Amino acid sequence: MFETIAIVGATGAVGRIIRQLLAERNFPHKRIRFLASARSAGTTIDFQGTTIEVEEMTPAAFEGIDLAIGSTPDPIAKEFVPWAKAAGCLVVDESGYWRMDAEVPLVVPEVNPEAAFTHKGVIASPNCSTTQMVLAMKPLHDAGRIKRVVVSTYQATSGAGVGGQAELIDASRAALAGSDHTPTTFAHPIAFNLIPQIGSLKHAGYTSEEMKMVFETQKIFADPTIKVCPTCVRAPVSNCHSESILVETEKKITAEQARALFAATPGLRVVDDLANGVYPMPRDCDGSDDTFIGRIREDLSSDNGLAFWCVSDNLRKGAATNAVQIAELLTKHSAAV
Amino acid sequence: MFETIAIVGATGAVGRIIRQLLAERNFPHKRIRFLASARSAGTTIDFQGTTIEVEEMTPAAFEGIDLAIGSTPDPIAKEFVPWAKAAGCLVVDESGYWRMDAEVPLVVPEVNPEAAFTHKGVIASPNCSTTQMVLAMKPLHDAGRIKRVVVSTYQATSGAGVGGQAELIDASRAALAGSDHTPTTFAHPIAFNLIPQIGSLKHAGYTSEEMKMVFETQKIFADPTIKVCPTCVRAPVSNCHSESILVETEKKITAEQARALFAATPGLRVVDDLANGVYPMPRDCDGSDDTFIGRIREDLSSDNGLAFWCVSDNLRKGAATNAVQIAELLTKHSAAV
Repeated sequence: MFETIAIVGATGAVGRIIRQLLAERNFPHKRIRFLASARSAGTTIDFQGTTIEVEEMTPAAFEGIDLAIGSTPDPIAKEFVPWAKAAGCLVVDESGYWRMDAEVPLVVPEVNPEAAFTHKGVIASPNCSTTQMVLAMKPLHDAGRIKRVVVSTYQATSGAGVGGQAELIDASRAALAGSDHTPTTFAHPIAFNLIPQIGSLKHAGYTSEEMKMVFETQKIFADPTIKVCPTCVRAPVSNCHSESILVETEKKITAEQARALFAATPGLRVVDDLANGVYPMPRDCDGSDDTFIGRIREDLSSDNGLAFWCVSDNLRKGAATNAVQIAELLTKHSAAV
Repeated sequence: MFETIAIVGATGAVGRIIRQLLAERNFPHKRIRFLASARSAGTTIDFQGTTIEVEEMTPAAFEGIDLAIGSTPDPIAKEFVPWAKAAGCLVVDESGYWRMDAEVPLVVPEVNPEAAFTHKGVIASPNCSTTQMVLAMKPLHDAGRIKRVVVSTYQATSGAGVGGQAELIDASRAALAGSDHTPTTFAHPIAFNLIPQIGSLKHAGYTSEEMKMVFETQKIFADPTIKVCPTCVRAPVSNCHSESILVETEKKITAEQARALFAATPGLRVVDDLANGVYPMPRDCDGSDDTFIGRIREDLSSDNGLAFWCVSDNLRKGAATNAVQIAELLTKHSAAV
């Protein structure tokens, strides 16, 4: 057990869910501390019947913390993680900053739990769009070895934080009223629109969000030969990312086999009955820790291809839940050692 | 020139745009007649300064009509097309009913104009999701022969008619007000949601809309070896369908070559500068007869793959514009003969 735990970025959209999850799941600890920027420091948060004051994130603040779960923008994670390490505090980091660092394991507990135990003080949790995809890929990869993935995403505004969800509401209200709205969180109007860019231009016409889906997938499966062609699109949805995924495997997997493999995988839930209009939709998956799979069918365009539709709450499994699950994994391991 | 022309389904969402287009483009004719169901018969429509009474669509109504452009539900097209043929009236039909009939050419004028002249009284216009895709495929197919397409769509509510667009507005208003809304046009809530089903279960886990993208593409290119893996999704967008398309060609086409090929194709417009946040989005393409291409890049997962993003006004090029262009093609041909 970690005696003193902390949430860094405790007041953010994901930080709030991390707090809920730690309470819901009775995460073992003796003391919990909430760190945030100077702006939020001094505010109070109720946690399991106790009122806790939010502390400013400084190097000294990490003294005495055994495990910190961080959910902050990349530049903040770049800054605080060395402070935590210097203070002997183990970090589970949700940001993008450390994910591709060769010394930092990138972990989805259902996919590569063993990687967590190779850490040198920091363990990273993947990008939301990657997490749900690799979770869906895992049983297929084990059964038939995935060689290639073609994925198009339909990503919710919550992926851009609280501001993204608020902007969807404000912009939609304005559009319905026929009045103007100037985007601030997004680069373009999000109401009743689609924006085929998430992140900035990174490599050969692909965005940073898209390249995360390539590199993080290869790292999590420890297999740089898995090829990924991603298209990441922001959709006017409040929460839960959806993905249209096509995988090609070395060994043929039928739709029936895939359905059984998905159903047997912890963290995945099969919702798949097209004849009766049953499949996962973002509004139905909101608030769940599971990742939902539907529209499972064999590819009409390749011998060993399999197509499916995957929806997951990007704030939960795509962020908070996965980080807390990594922390639980480390807790069990520390108990076992 | 066709002396007497008619629009069948003149009062519908697409019928209205066909009327606009015929007027805008000064479609040559001496007389125009508007046919519709008994429900709309007797109402009047202003057209180029004349008030025209809508007539009921009956077998006798087709007497004296040289060319009819039809935009009706499939069961209506099944009924009226034989009436028109019996009366010696040539039909350009927008419905799905006749498209796969071996005697009926399926035409996108920029792609396979020659097919139009093999008609036996009826020419079909493809499904909206197919039309914009084959238009984008055409220059790539000519340059490098397309062997395979993987496509995920983000389809607007206007594809489900006027009722679809109205339901998006009503359902969005209700969601923003926190009140209930019961879907009628769609099977599930469309506001701030995604519905990964368009049409009904047709074949091996694919919907009727998806199978249209397979069969119609093969028919238009007269090449049943072109393989297509489609995923059709309804998005909370009012008008204009978007598609994330990956094509694999026999001969390698670079992103630079593709950009030049697209730019040189009539009907296509390249909007592609990711570094500056420039790409097609449904709200910007509304009302245009062009099909817009952006996010052009080489596939990271295959040697000869090319990925791009394609947006088009599904009521215009996806329906009305394409039908009117077919009619124009026939007019020119009749003039040339």
